[in-house]
Amino acid sequence: MPAIHDRSVATFVAQLAASGVRHAVIAPGSRSTPLTLALTAPGLPIQPWLHLDERSAGYFALGIARQLGEPVALVCTSGTAAANFLPAVAEASLSRVPLLVLTADRPPELRDDGASQTIGQTNLFGSHAKWFVELPVAADDPLIERHARATAARATALAVESPAGPVHLNFPFREPLLDAETTLLAPPVIETAGTFAAARLAPDSEEVRRLAAEFGGRRGLVVAGPESRGLPVEAIATLAAALGWPIIADPLSGFRAGDHDRALVIERVDTLAREPEFSSRATPEVVLRFGAQPTSKPLNVWLAGIAGLRQFVVDDASMGSAGWRDPDALDGAAIRADSELLCEALVAELGITGAVDGGWRELWLGANDVASVALGEAIAALEVPFEGRTAVDLAAALPAGATLVVGNSMPVRDIDSFFPQLDRAVRIVGTRGAAGIDGVVSTAAGAAAVSAEPVVLVIGDLSFFHDQNGLWPVHRHGLNLTVLLVNNDGGGIFEFLPQRELASERFDEWFGTAHGLDLSHIVALYGGRHTLVERDSAAALRAAIATPGLDVIELRTDRSTNVGLHRGVFDEARVALRTHLEGVETE
Amino acid sequence: MPAIHDRSVATFVAQLAASGVRHAVIAPGSRSTPLTLALTAPGLPIQPWLHLDERSAGYFALGIARQLGEPVALVCTSGTAAANFLPAVAEASLSRVPLLVLTADRPPELRDDGASQTIGQTNLFGSHAKWFVELPVAADDPLIERHARATAARATALAVESPAGPVHLNFPFREPLLDAETTLLAPPVIETAGTFAAARLAPDSEEVRRLAAEFGGRRGLVVAGPESRGLPVEAIATLAAALGWPIIADPLSGFRAGDHDRALVIERVDTLAREPEFSSRATPEVVLRFGAQPTSKPLNVWLAGIAGLRQFVVDDASMGSAGWRDPDALDGAAIRADSELLCEALVAELGITGAVDGGWRELWLGANDVASVALGEAIAALEVPFEGRTAVDLAAALPAGATLVVGNSMPVRDIDSFFPQLDRAVRIVGTRGAAGIDGVVSTAAGAAAVSAEPVVLVIGDLSFFHDQNGLWPVHRHGLNLTVLLVNNDGGGIFEFLPQRELASERFDEWFGTAHGLDLSHIVALYGGRHTLVERDSAAALRAAIATPGLDVIELRTDRSTNVGLHRGVFDEARVALRTHLEGVETE
Repeated sequence: MPAIHDRSVATFVAQLAASGVRHAVIAPGSRSTPLTLALTAPGLPIQPWLHLDERSAGYFALGIARQLGEPVALVCTSGTAAANFLPAVAEASLSRVPLLVLTADRPPELRDDGASQTIGQTNLFGSHAKWFVELPVAADDPLIERHARATAARATALAVESPAGPVHLNFPFREPLLDAETTLLAPPVIETAGTFAAARLAPDSEEVRRLAAEFGGRRGLVVAGPESRGLPVEAIATLAAALGWPIIADPLSGFRAGDHDRALVIERVDTLAREPEFSSRATPEVVLRFGAQPTSKPLNVWLAGIAGLRQFVVDDASMGSAGWRDPDALDGAAIRADSELLCEALVAELGITGAVDGGWRELWLGANDVASVALGEAIAALEVPFEGRTAVDLAAALPAGATLVVGNSMPVRDIDSFFPQLDRAVRIVGTRGAAGIDGVVSTAAGAAAVSAEPVVLVIGDLSFFHDQNGLWPVHRHGLNLTVLLVNNDGGGIFEFLPQRELASERFDEWFGTAHGLDLSHIVALYGGRHTLVERDSAAALRAAIATPGLDVIELRTDRSTNVGLHRGVFDEARVALRTHLEGVETE
Repeated sequence: MPAIHDRSVATFVAQLAASGVRHAVIAPGSRSTPLTLALTAPGLPIQPWLHLDERSAGYFALGIARQLGEPVALVCTSGTAAANFLPAVAEASLSRVPLLVLTADRPPELRDDGASQTIGQTNLFGSHAKWFVELPVAADDPLIERHARATAARATALAVESPAGPVHLNFPFREPLLDAETTLLAPPVIETAGTFAAARLAPDSEEVRRLAAEFGGRRGLVVAGPESRGLPVEAIATLAAALGWPIIADPLSGFRAGDHDRALVIERVDTLAREPEFSSRATPEVVLRFGAQPTSKPLNVWLAGIAGLRQFVVDDASMGSAGWRDPDALDGAAIRADSELLCEALVAELGITGAVDGGWRELWLGANDVASVALGEAIAALEVPFEGRTAVDLAAALPAGATLVVGNSMPVRDIDSFFPQLDRAVRIVGTRGAAGIDGVVSTAAGAAAVSAEPVVLVIGDLSFFHDQNGLWPVHRHGLNLTVLLVNNDGGGIFEFLPQRELASERFDEWFGTAHGLDLSHIVALYGGRHTLVERDSAAALRAAIATPGLDVIELRTDRSTNVGLHRGVFDEARVALRTHLEGVETE
C-alpha cells in the first residue's frame, strides 16, 4: 500500500491544476517530499521551479504571479524555511498578488516538544495571509481526500479574489514520507470539479448618479497609482475624456507606455508639483484615485495640502486593512466598486455634457510638454554620470512587449520623475506593496521565468546585494535577464533626507552605509556578463537585451553629487515652466 | 525643542545599557533613525554593529548573544525589513538565546491605509517572541519616559530569564524623525534604576528524595544534549560520578572538550548505537536527560525503542511549547528544575552509596575506546576526500579557547560521529533550535565579532550559499573567521534518506539539487582568501587560524560516494566493537 498521504496530496495538486495554477516554486527539503513529488509528476500541467533560498523563492513566485496575473504555488519544508517566506507574503498581501503558500510540517505529535526542524507554523504569517488552513493528517478516509480537493479549490479562488493575496496551507506529514509503492511519481488524474465562478463588485446606481453630479463640469484629476494586476486603462481613459480630466500617471499604473489612449496622460507631475507657479494655478476641485498611493512625494504632499479638495479612492476591497488606500486621511470618500464597472457606469451617466472646459486640460498638457522637453534637454546636457538618465536610456532601449522591473528607493523615483510616455507597450512593475528593497532581484527573475519578451531590472546596489541569491534561478534555469545596476555604493536615498544635514558625523557610517564591494564578483558567481558604462547605458542595454542569459550593466555614480544633479535638472525644468506660464493667460 | 521622541528613546537605550546590553546590531533605514542615533551615541557602553541584510543581521545578533550568553539588541526600520527577522527570531526562541528585537514602525495614523514601507508589525513574530510590546507614540509626558525605561528593563530581564529568548518591541515614530536640535547625538545619561534580580528554580526536596531512590544503584545514562547557554558540566559530571553513569555527550553539550572531569564521557554513541551486539548488552534502566534532543538519530531511535525504560528530562522551562523537550513521548517524566541545583541536590541525597556496580561504566567506556580507535584508523586509511575527516582535522587544528560553529544537515552529524574528546577547551556551537541550514554563516560571524580567540565554521555548500550575505560583516568590520566549506554540490544529506532509493528519476533535480556554482567567487566578493584542499584540511586550517581576516578552505567531495564511505567507516568500527565484546564477559 502506498504511503497514506499519497491520495490526498495527489488530489490536492490535481485540483490546483484544475483551478488554474500553472507554476509552482519549490525549495528543497525532506518533510515536503509528498508535495514535491506530486508537483513534479510527469504530465501535470504545472511547471515546477526549483529555488535554493526560500526568501528569494517567495519573491520569485510573486514575480511569476504578478507577471501572469495568476496564482502561483510556493512550497517549502518545515522549520525556519517557512519563516523565510514572510517578507514575500507581506509584499504579496499589500501588493495584492495571489500566492498559495504550501508549507510542510511535522504532524501534531512532533510539535512543541523539541523535535528538530520544527517551529510553530500555525498562523505563521499572521495577518499577512488571507487564510490559514491546517490540513488534516492524511488517513484512509474518503472525506480527507474530498476535503483536500475542496481546500485546493477554495484556497485558489480566495487567493485570486480581489483584493488578491497570499493564502497559507500547512501540511502535516507523518513518516513514511514516501515508500516503494508511492503513487506520487505518476501523473495525477485532473478533474474539473470544484472550480469557482468569480464576480465583480458593481457600483450602486444611486451612488453613480450622485458621483456624476459631483464630478461633472468640475476641474478634476484622475490619479492613477500603482496596481499589480494593472488598472483598466481603457475604461479610465474613457472616463477621463468624458470629464476632461488629466490622468496623473504613476509609472506603475500602466498608463505611461502602450497603444491605449494617452491623450490626457500626465507623466511629469513629479516636476510640475515642485513648481508653485504651476501648482497654484492648477489646483483641482476633485481628485479621483485608482490604485495605490503614487510614488511622487511632491504630488502627494501637494494634494494632501489643498484645503477643501474632495478626493475619492476607488477600490473593490473591503474596508479592512487591505482596502483603505488613504494614508493622508484625505477629505473625501472611499468608493467601493470594481474600477472598470464604475468607470463605465459614470461614463454612461455623464453622457456628452460632463466635461469641464478645455482650458483645464490645456493647462496641464501644455505644462507637461514643457517639463518633458526641459527635463530631456537638462539630462542630455549632463556630461557626468546621472542616475536619472537611466530612465531615459531605458525608455530608448526597451522594445515593445518588454517588462521593466523597477527597484525601490531611488530607481522607482527616478523612473517616476524621468521615464517618458512611450507608444510601445512596455510594462513597468515594481514591488510597491511594502516598498522594501528586498526581493527585487527575485521579482525580476520570476518575471523573466515566464516572459517570452525581454525583462529588464533597474536596481540600486544595496537592493541588488540584499537579494543576490535571487539570481540563482537565472543561472539554473537559463533565464534571460538584463540588469541595470545603479551603484552609488550605499544608500543614495538618504542623501535626500534630513539625516544628511543633521547627523553628518555619523551619516556615512549609519545611513550612507557604503558596502565597499566589487559587485562584479556576484555576476561572475552566476556566470553572467558584466559591463561597466560611464554615462550612457542605452547601447549596452540594447546589446544585453539582444543576448540570452544574465547581463549586468553597472553605472557607478557618486552619492554625494547626486542630490545636486537632481536639483539642477528639476530647477531647469521649473525655469522653463515658469517662462511657459508667463505666456499662458490665467483664467 | 528637539524632536519629541528624543527623550523616551534616549532613556530606553540608557536603560538597555544599565541592564547589561553591550551589543546592538543595526540594519540601516530612515524610520528607525531615532533608535540608530541613540544606539550610536558617543560614550554609550553599547557596541553598535552595522549589517545590510536584516535576515543575516538577525542571526549575527544571535551569534553574538550565544557567544557571550547575554542579550543583544537588534534594530531595523519599518516594513519587510522587520519580516526578515522571523527566521532568527524562531531560532532564538527554540535555541533559547536572548534577543531584544527593536522594530521601527509608522505611527498608528499611517498603518493599514496604504502608506509606503508599512506592514502590520503588531505580533509580527507571533508565538516566536516571548513578549510583544507596542511602545506609545512619544509625547511630552514624564510617564511616557518612565514607561520607556521600565519597558527596557523588563524586556531585557524577560529575554534573559530562563528559558531565554527573543522579545519584540515595536516603536512608532512620527515625523520629524530628527531635527536640528536633536539630543540623540549626545551621550545618554546612564542610570542604574530598573535592573533585575534573577532567580533559579530549585527542585522540591521531596522530589529529590524520590528521584535519588529511583536512580540509585540502577544502570543509567546521562544524556547531555545541545544547550546554547552551556550545560553545567561540573555539576552533571559530579552527579554522573555519584551514580556511576556514563555521560552521552552530544557535541553541542559542552562535554566533549575542556579540562573538566571527562572520566565518564562517551562521545562515540552514534557508532555504538548502530551495533546491536553492543546496544543489546548496554540497555539502560534509567536515562536522565539535560539539554535538547541529541543530534544522533541512532541514539534517539534506540532509546525510544527500549521497552520499560524510564527517561527523565530536566528543564527549568515551564510546560508550554518551550519546555517539553520530548519529541519521542518517552515513558518517563519531566523534572522541572535548574539543572545545576538539581544535580547538587541529588548528589547530596545519594551520598556515597548511590553508584551502580563498576561493570556498567566499564562496558561503556571500553566500547567507547574501541570505537574511537577504530574510527580513527578507518578515517586515516581513506585516501579519497571524506567529509567525516573534517571532524578529525578540526580537532587536530583547533587551539584552546577556539569556538567551532557547526552547520546543520551533514556537518553537525559528522562532528557528532567523528569529533573526539579533547583536553583543550574548544567550544562547539550550532543552531540546533530549528536546525535550519539558514543563518549559519551569520551565527559564526557574530561569534567572531565578540571573540578574541579563533572562530572556525564548518558548513556545507547549500548552507554557505543560503547565507552568503552573512559574510558582509566579516568584510566590513574586519573580523577574523575561518570557514571549512564542505562542498558536495548540493544536498548531501538526501543521499542518506529514502528519497534516494525511491524517486531516483527525480532525485538529482529535486533533492540532490546541485547548484553548479563556483563558490570561490563569493570569497572574492568579500576579499577573503580561498584555499582548495584535496583530502587533509588540518594544515590549511592551522594556517588560516593564524591569519587575520576571512579564510575559506574548500573540500570538494562526491555526494554519490559519501554514503558508502560513511557506511564503510562505521562498519569497520562495528567489526572492532564486536571483536572487543567477544572478549568481554557478559554479566
